[in-house]
Amino acid sequence: MSENGNRPDTMFPLTVEQKAVLLSGRDVWSTHAIEDAGIRAVRLSDGPHGLRMQEAGDNFGLLPSLPSTCFPPAVALGASWDPDIVATVGAALGLEARAAGVDIVLGPGVNIKRSPLCGRNFEYLSEDPLLSGRLGAAYVDGLQSTGVGAAVKHFAANNQETDRMRVSADVDERTLREIYLPAFEYVVSHARPAMVMCAYNKINGTYASEHRRLLTDVLRGDWDFGGAVVSDWGAVHDPVAAVRAGLDLEMPSTSGRSALALVAAVQAGQLDEVELDRAVARVLALAQYGGPPVPVDHDAHHLLARRAAAACVVLLKNDGVLPLPRAGEVVVLGEFARTPRFQGGGSSHVNATRAESFLAAAADYAAGAVPFAPGFTVDGTGDEVALRDEAVALARECGIAVVFAGLGEAEESEGFDRDTLDLPPAQVRLIRAVSAVAPKTVVVLSHGGTVSLEGWHDQVDAIVDGFLLGQGGGGALADVLYGAVNPSGKLAESIPLRIEDTPAFGNFPGELGHVGYGERLLVGYRSYATKGVAVRYPFGHGLSYTRFGVRELDVTVVEQDRVRVRLTVDNLGDRAGDHVVQIYVDATGRGPVLRPARELRAFTKVHVPVGGSVPVELTLDRRAFAFWDIGVADWVVTPGEYRVIIGRDSLTTELEHAVTLAGDALVRALTLNSTLQEWVDHPVVGPVLVDTLGSELLAAAVQPDKLRVIGSVPMQKVVNIIAGDVPAGAVDSLMAMTVSRSAA
Amino acid sequence: MSENGNRPDTMFPLTVEQKAVLLSGRDVWSTHAIEDAGIRAVRLSDGPHGLRMQEAGDNFGLLPSLPSTCFPPAVALGASWDPDIVATVGAALGLEARAAGVDIVLGPGVNIKRSPLCGRNFEYLSEDPLLSGRLGAAYVDGLQSTGVGAAVKHFAANNQETDRMRVSADVDERTLREIYLPAFEYVVSHARPAMVMCAYNKINGTYASEHRRLLTDVLRGDWDFGGAVVSDWGAVHDPVAAVRAGLDLEMPSTSGRSALALVAAVQAGQLDEVELDRAVARVLALAQYGGPPVPVDHDAHHLLARRAAAACVVLLKNDGVLPLPRAGEVVVLGEFARTPRFQGGGSSHVNATRAESFLAAAADYAAGAVPFAPGFTVDGTGDEVALRDEAVALARECGIAVVFAGLGEAEESEGFDRDTLDLPPAQVRLIRAVSAVAPKTVVVLSHGGTVSLEGWHDQVDAIVDGFLLGQGGGGALADVLYGAVNPSGKLAESIPLRIEDTPAFGNFPGELGHVGYGERLLVGYRSYATKGVAVRYPFGHGLSYTRFGVRELDVTVVEQDRVRVRLTVDNLGDRAGDHVVQIYVDATGRGPVLRPARELRAFTKVHVPVGGSVPVELTLDRRAFAFWDIGVADWVVTPGEYRVIIGRDSLTTELEHAVTLAGDALVRALTLNSTLQEWVDHPVVGPVLVDTLGSELLAAAVQPDKLRVIGSVPMQKVVNIIAGDVPAGAVDSLMAMTVSRSAA
Repeated sequence: MSENGNRPDTMFPLTVEQKAVLLSGRDVWSTHAIEDAGIRAVRLSDGPHGLRMQEAGDNFGLLPSLPSTCFPPAVALGASWDPDIVATVGAALGLEARAAGVDIVLGPGVNIKRSPLCGRNFEYLSEDPLLSGRLGAAYVDGLQSTGVGAAVKHFAANNQETDRMRVSADVDERTLREIYLPAFEYVVSHARPAMVMCAYNKINGTYASEHRRLLTDVLRGDWDFGGAVVSDWGAVHDPVAAVRAGLDLEMPSTSGRSALALVAAVQAGQLDEVELDRAVARVLALAQYGGPPVPVDHDAHHLLARRAAAACVVLLKNDGVLPLPRAGEVVVLGEFARTPRFQGGGSSHVNATRAESFLAAAADYAAGAVPFAPGFTVDGTGDEVALRDEAVALARECGIAVVFAGLGEAEESEGFDRDTLDLPPAQVRLIRAVSAVAPKTVVVLSHGGTVSLEGWHDQVDAIVDGFLLGQGGGGALADVLYGAVNPSGKLAESIPLRIEDTPAFGNFPGELGHVGYGERLLVGYRSYATKGVAVRYPFGHGLSYTRFGVRELDVTVVEQDRVRVRLTVDNLGDRAGDHVVQIYVDATGRGPVLRPARELRAFTKVHVPVGGSVPVELTLDRRAFAFWDIGVADWVVTPGEYRVIIGRDSLTTELEHAVTLAGDALVRALTLNSTLQEWVDHPVVGPVLVDTLGSELLAAAVQPDKLRVIGSVPMQKVVNIIAGDVPAGAVDSLMAMTVSRSAA
Repeated sequence: MSENGNRPDTMFPLTVEQKAVLLSGRDVWSTHAIEDAGIRAVRLSDGPHGLRMQEAGDNFGLLPSLPSTCFPPAVALGASWDPDIVATVGAALGLEARAAGVDIVLGPGVNIKRSPLCGRNFEYLSEDPLLSGRLGAAYVDGLQSTGVGAAVKHFAANNQETDRMRVSADVDERTLREIYLPAFEYVVSHARPAMVMCAYNKINGTYASEHRRLLTDVLRGDWDFGGAVVSDWGAVHDPVAAVRAGLDLEMPSTSGRSALALVAAVQAGQLDEVELDRAVARVLALAQYGGPPVPVDHDAHHLLARRAAAACVVLLKNDGVLPLPRAGEVVVLGEFARTPRFQGGGSSHVNATRAESFLAAAADYAAGAVPFAPGFTVDGTGDEVALRDEAVALARECGIAVVFAGLGEAEESEGFDRDTLDLPPAQVRLIRAVSAVAPKTVVVLSHGGTVSLEGWHDQVDAIVDGFLLGQGGGGALADVLYGAVNPSGKLAESIPLRIEDTPAFGNFPGELGHVGYGERLLVGYRSYATKGVAVRYPFGHGLSYTRFGVRELDVTVVEQDRVRVRLTVDNLGDRAGDHVVQIYVDATGRGPVLRPARELRAFTKVHVPVGGSVPVELTLDRRAFAFWDIGVADWVVTPGEYRVIIGRDSLTTELEHAVTLAGDALVRALTLNSTLQEWVDHPVVGPVLVDTLGSELLAAAVQPDKLRVIGSVPMQKVVNIIAGDVPAGAVDSLMAMTVSRSAA
C-alpha cells in the first residue's frame, strides 16, 4: 500500500449512511472523502491513450480538458503487436496522471472488434482476444508501474455503440468464454488492474452493472479479481441490484440518490450490510493508487508518442515505391497530410500538447517543403471538383503522389456506429483521379474503424495504414514513408472485401433492444479462415522493407498438454527490421464442438539485424488447445492431433507441425437422457452394454445401419421398449459405472 | 361430425383413470377405445407421401408395412409450386387411408429446410415458409376432403436430425414468427388439420411437447387451432407437464405409465381435472375422421403418382440437348436409371405397389431398349474402374449420354444429417469421364437433400433435377426427358456453391445440446439475396422447353396495406407449358429491423398455350409487408415504400414496381428508459420537447452533432443531469401524451 492510502486497519467506524455514500461518486471524476475517517477522495480520469483531465467534468467528451500527450489510440497500438511499446506508453501516461493528481486512468479498452462498423473500435485493440489480452495487460503493467491504477473496460460484450445503454448482447456461454471474456481474463489474471469497469449494455437480458454471474462468479470467482468494479458513467440503473451483483463504485455522482436507495435497502433487509462493507473496503483500497506529483517532460513524451506510432504503422501494399526518395518528385495530396486526424471522438478525446503534421515532418526529410494540395475538405464542403483538379494537376507533374485519405472526426465516434465501410466518395474519386495520372501513387490512411480499399486498391502502388496514430502520427508516418523506420505493424483486424462478408452482418447492430451474436466464435479471421471467405487483407498482415524467413520449426510436448515451439527467424533482406512471429492452432475436429480453422495462440515481435538470424521459443499451454465445454463448465482439451501453424498472417501458413496431446480423460456420466449412441460410444459402458442388458431387440438396434438412424434416441425411450427383456437394475448398475469416474 | 364419431354430448361419465388412459396410445398406431362409453379407437398411420400401414408397429421404419402407392415425397412436391397437384395427391392418399381403415395420416411436414444437410429434408417442402404453408395447406385440403384427418408436423423448429430428441433450437421470437412458424400458421388457419404433431426437440430450452407458449398461446390463442396436439412418437418426457402445456395425445403407448402419472398429478392437485377434460374432448373429437372403406384403384394411383412426379421435375440447365430424340443415339448410364431411388428412409418409408424405372419407361418412348450401363453401384461395392470403363465405352459411341446420379438410401435418412453436399466421388468421376467423351451429356439427379453440382456442372449440357419422385418417378423422368411433359418445376431450395456459403454454417447442427439459429431470418435465398452470395442455382429457378415473358405489371393499393398485382404472361416459344409467377417483396429499410432483400409473398402456376397470353391477378395482404415487432408482439407494417418484384427466380428480377403503404400508425409510448433520440424523434413529444422542458443544457444536447453522440442515452440519465433546470412534472406530462395513443 502506498503512502497516501487509506488505512482500513484503523478504520474509523462508519455508519451505514457513510458507507452508502462511498459507493457512488462525489462528482464526475472523484470518489467521496470522509475526512473524520481518514478517507481521501480518489481521482479518476478518462483515458486510455492520453489523459482527459477536466476542470468542469462531463463524461461525454463535450467539455474541454487540460493539455496532455495524445499517445496512439488502441486501434494503432493493437497493430504494433508489441507489448513493450504498449507498456512504455502506459508508463508515460502514468507519469502524466501523477503530474495531474489523477489516481486511476480509465483504460485500457479490451472489447473485441466484432464488426468493423462499431463506432468505438478505435478505442479497442483487436478482433482477437489473445492479442487484446496481451497488449491490454502490457498497458496495465506499464501504467501501474507508476503507481497509478488502471480500469480495464468495458466488461463485457460491449461491441457496439448503437443503443449501447440498453441493448442486450445475446451471446452463448462458450462464445463469451472463448471470444469476449479472455482478454479481460488475461488482463485481470496477469496484470491485476485496480479496477474493472462494467459496460452499459445488458448481457443476455441483464445489465452488465447488475450481472452477478459476470461481476462476481466469473470475475472474482473464476479469475480471482481483487480490485474494485466501477460502473461505466451512468451504467447503473438499480444501485441495490448493482451492489448485490458485485459492483463497488457507481460513477458519476447521483447527487445522493443511490446512497439513499442503498440505506433504505439495508434498513428493509433487502441488502445485507456485509455486501455494503465488502464494496466499501474495495473502494477504500483504491487510495493505494496514485502518488505525489512528478514532473512530466512533454517533449520527451511527444517523441515517445512518435516512436510508438511508428511501430504501429502497417504497410499493406508496396510495389517497390516505398520508401520514398528524399529528393524531388514527391507530391503530397489530401487534407489529412496538413491537418492530421489522429484520435477518435468521445470520452477518450485528448487535448493534445501538439499535433505534428506529415507535411511538416516530411519537410525535414525532403530538406524543404514538399508540394502539397489538399484535394478535398474533411467536412465535405468546398468545391470538390476544383480541389481535385488542383491535386490532379500536381500529380500529373510528379514522380510519386502520396495521397492522405481517411475518415473525419464527424464520421466516427463513441456514441454511434458507422453504416458503411466506404471512404467518403470524394476521396475515392481523388485517389482514382490521381492514380490515373501519377506515375506512382501511395495512399496513406487515417481512420479509427476499418475502411474498404475496394474501388481503388488495384490502381495504386502502395498503401500505408496509419489508423489513428496520436499526436506523433504525422512524424511517424514520415519516418516510415521515408524509410527511417522499417514498418513492422501487423493488422489487428481483417480488412474485408464487403460489409456483407463480415461475420456479424445480419445481426449487428441488432434491433428493438437485442443484438444476437449469431456468428458465435467465428469472429474476424476465425470466420474468414473457417468459411474460406476472401478478404482484402487478413488479420496479421503487414509488409516490411526487408524480407523475413522462418525455418527449423520444432514443436514438442514438454509436459502434458504443454507444447514448446521453437523456430529461427532470418532477415533475408538488406535492412534491419522487426518481425512478428504468429503462432496459430488449428483444432478442427477436436471435441464435440465447432473449432475455428485458425486461432492465434502466441506471438512475439523480434528484432533481426541485416543478415541476422534470431532463435524464437514460445510455449503453448493447455488453454491454447482447449475449448469451453458447457457440459462441464470448464476448459477441456480433447485428446488427439492439433496443427501448430506459423502464419505469415492469419490465412497464410509458413510452417506447420502436428502435435498429439493426451488431453483430458473426460468420461461423461451416462443418464437415461443420454442417447443410445452415447451409451454405445461410452468407453466404460459401451463394450459391455449388449451383454449386460442381454436384450435381442437392443442387439439388433446397435447394428451400424440401424444405429445410424436411431442412435439419437435417449436411453429412457430405449428402456421403455426393451424393459421386459432386461434384468431389473441392470441399467442402473451400468450408469453407476460412469459416475465415479465422471468429470461432469 | 361424421357418422362414426364419438358423441361427447351423450358422453358416458368417465373416471379420472379412464380420461388419463385416453391421453396416450393403446399401441403404436391406435388410441384407446372405451366401449362402454361408446368411444372407439382412432387409427393413425405414418405418411406423408404414402401410407405406411403396419401390422406389427414400430415408429422408426424398421418393420415392414403393407403395399401402398408411393407418391412424390415433399422434396419433389415442393418443387411443383402447384397446390392443385398437391391437393390431388392428398386426396388419393386419403382414399388409400380409407381403404386401410386409417383415420388420420401423419403429415404433411412443413418444417423449413434450414440447412441442406438436414437428413429429413426430403420430407419437407421448402426453405421458404410461404411456399411450405401454401403447399402444406393444399395437401391437408386434399387429404381431409376424403374424411381422413391430417397431422401437420413437426411443431416447431425441428430442422435437423442430429440430437433431435434433446437438442434445444435456440431461436429468437421474430425469427420463429417470420421463418419457422408461418407455414404451420397458414396450414392451421386455412386448412384446419385434425392434428398438429409436436416435435422431439426443445425450443429455447423447453421440449416442444411441454412448450405451453407454442402449444397453447400461439397455436390455439393466436391461430385458433381447434384440433388435437399429438406428440411425435416418443417426444413426451413428462406427461403431466405436456398436458399442462396443451398436448392432448401422447404416442405411442407407454404401457399405462403416463396415465398413472396423470392420475397421480390430479390427485395431488398438481393438474386440474379441467385440463384433462379439455384434452380428452379433443382426443374424442378425432373420431370424426376416417370413414367406411372405399375401393382403391392402384393403377390409377400409380398414373397419378407419375403425373404428379412430372410436375415436380426441375430442368436446371439445358444447352439445347433436351428433349431427347426418340430415335437412336441415346445411351443411359447410372444404376439409378435401372434401380430408381424414389423415397427416403425412416418413418415415411412406403412399401410401394410398384417401382417404375426410367429405363423401362424410356423403352416405350424409344420404341425399344435403350443401351445401358450401370456405371457404379449404389452401395459403392464392385470394381469402380471396370464399371466406369464400361459406361465410358458406351458413351464414346453415342450421340447423347444420359447419366443418372444421386444419393443412395444409406446416405440420407430420417435419424441423421449428412456431413457433405457432395455426390459419391465415384459418380462424380463417372460424370466427368462420360462428359469428356460423349458429344452431349445429360445428368439426371435423384436425391432427398440438395447435392452440389460443383466439379462437373460446366462439363455437361443439361441437368434434370428429379429429387425423390415416388414410384412414378422413372416414368415421369422419361415423360420430361422425351418431351411428352414440358418441365415446370422450380427449385424450392437454393443450390449453393459450397456448404460454407449456407447461412446455418457454423451453427448447424449445434453442439452439446444446443443449436443456435444465429443466421436469424436470413435462411435460404433470403441470405443469398441479402448478402449477395453467389449460388449455383437460386430458389425459384427452373427452365422450360418454351420461353415465357411477363409484361404489363400493375401494382395498386386497393385498400389500406392491401395490394393488387396484375400482369400478363406470354408463351413466346413453340410448346404449351406451365409458368410459375413468383412475386417477391423487398422491404429494405422499412422499420427498425433488418429486412431480407427478397421475400416470396405470392405465387401461382398458370398454363399458357402456344402463342397464348394469360392474365394473372394476385393479392398481397398486409402480412406480405409486415414484420413481427417484438416490442408490441404483433405484425406491424411500417409506412413507406416497398418494391414488388416479379422474379424469374429469387435473385432475378423480371419486372418491379414500387408501392407506398400507409402502414400502421404505431406511436410508441415514451418512458424514462427511452433514449434521448427516441424522445426527439417522437411524433408527438419531439416537436415540443425542448420548449416544454425549457432546459438550456437539453437545448444544447439536441443539436445534431451532439445528438449523434449522446442520442442513445436513456431519458432517465438526461433527467438526472438537467433535473434542476426543468419544471416539476414536465417530463411526466410529456410521457402521458404518448400513452393514450400508443400501440405498445
